[in-house]
Amino acid sequence: MSKSAVPVNLTDRLSQFSELWSQKKVAVLNDYEVKLAKLKGEFVWHTHEDTDELFLVISGRLTIQLRDADVVLEPGELFVVPRGVEHCPVAHEETAILLFEPEGTLNTGDAGGPMTKVAETLR
Amino acid sequence: MSKSAVPVNLTDRLSQFSELWSQKKVAVLNDYEVKLAKLKGEFVWHTHEDTDELFLVISGRLTIQLRDADVVLEPGELFVVPRGVEHCPVAHEETAILLFEPEGTLNTGDAGGPMTKVAETLR
Repeated sequence: MSKSAVPVNLTDRLSQFSELWSQKKVAVLNDYEVKLAKLKGEFVWHTHEDTDELFLVISGRLTIQLRDADVVLEPGELFVVPRGVEHCPVAHEETAILLFEPEGTLNTGDAGGPMTKVAETLR
Repeated sequence: MSKSAVPVNLTDRLSQFSELWSQKKVAVLNDYEVKLAKLKGEFVWHTHEDTDELFLVISGRLTIQLRDADVVLEPGELFVVPRGVEHCPVAHEETAILLFEPEGTLNTGDAGGPMTKVAETLR
């Protein structure tokens, strides 16, 4: 631990990118990652068979569509999608979120396709 | 997943308790927990030998004292204390934080003592 230990400012990190649906790693905790993303529009239906997935809304408004319910998240609200539960995020306005999940979790889970992107590290 | 799937509102959950230095579980992700706490004053120096520990400040201001640096966190800032690194949180005003760490991580780590409290679940 050096004297350069500095916190991660979420607003600052969010100002460093504008791409939508592209996860950016901002911190690592053991073998888990904290990631940020900006969303607008509808994603793809997918499932993570091996892990739960945590969404925390920072700004905007996120609907996590499930097959039997919609979960609407305002800023300061979080929701954990359990492993094996099919879901599809949709944001009608640009929305910034924090994600928490195991290293290497792919954004599209089992669905694959053109929206699949490996998370990049923001420094 | 039932139709009662509802998000966790952090402001709402924080309004449900006033105790200081008492961690409250608000969500579980795999074998990790999301906890909230209210802090004021100085905690105890301690180390978590087996895990990193994530602090995210929601309101107030938190200083994480390390043996060779102080990390000051404002709202919307996070910091991960690596495993094995001795630290001591201090908050000069009442400060609300979100913690992310493995289930069962004790607040006082290896230090024990009268500040030790097992996290309770907030519903």
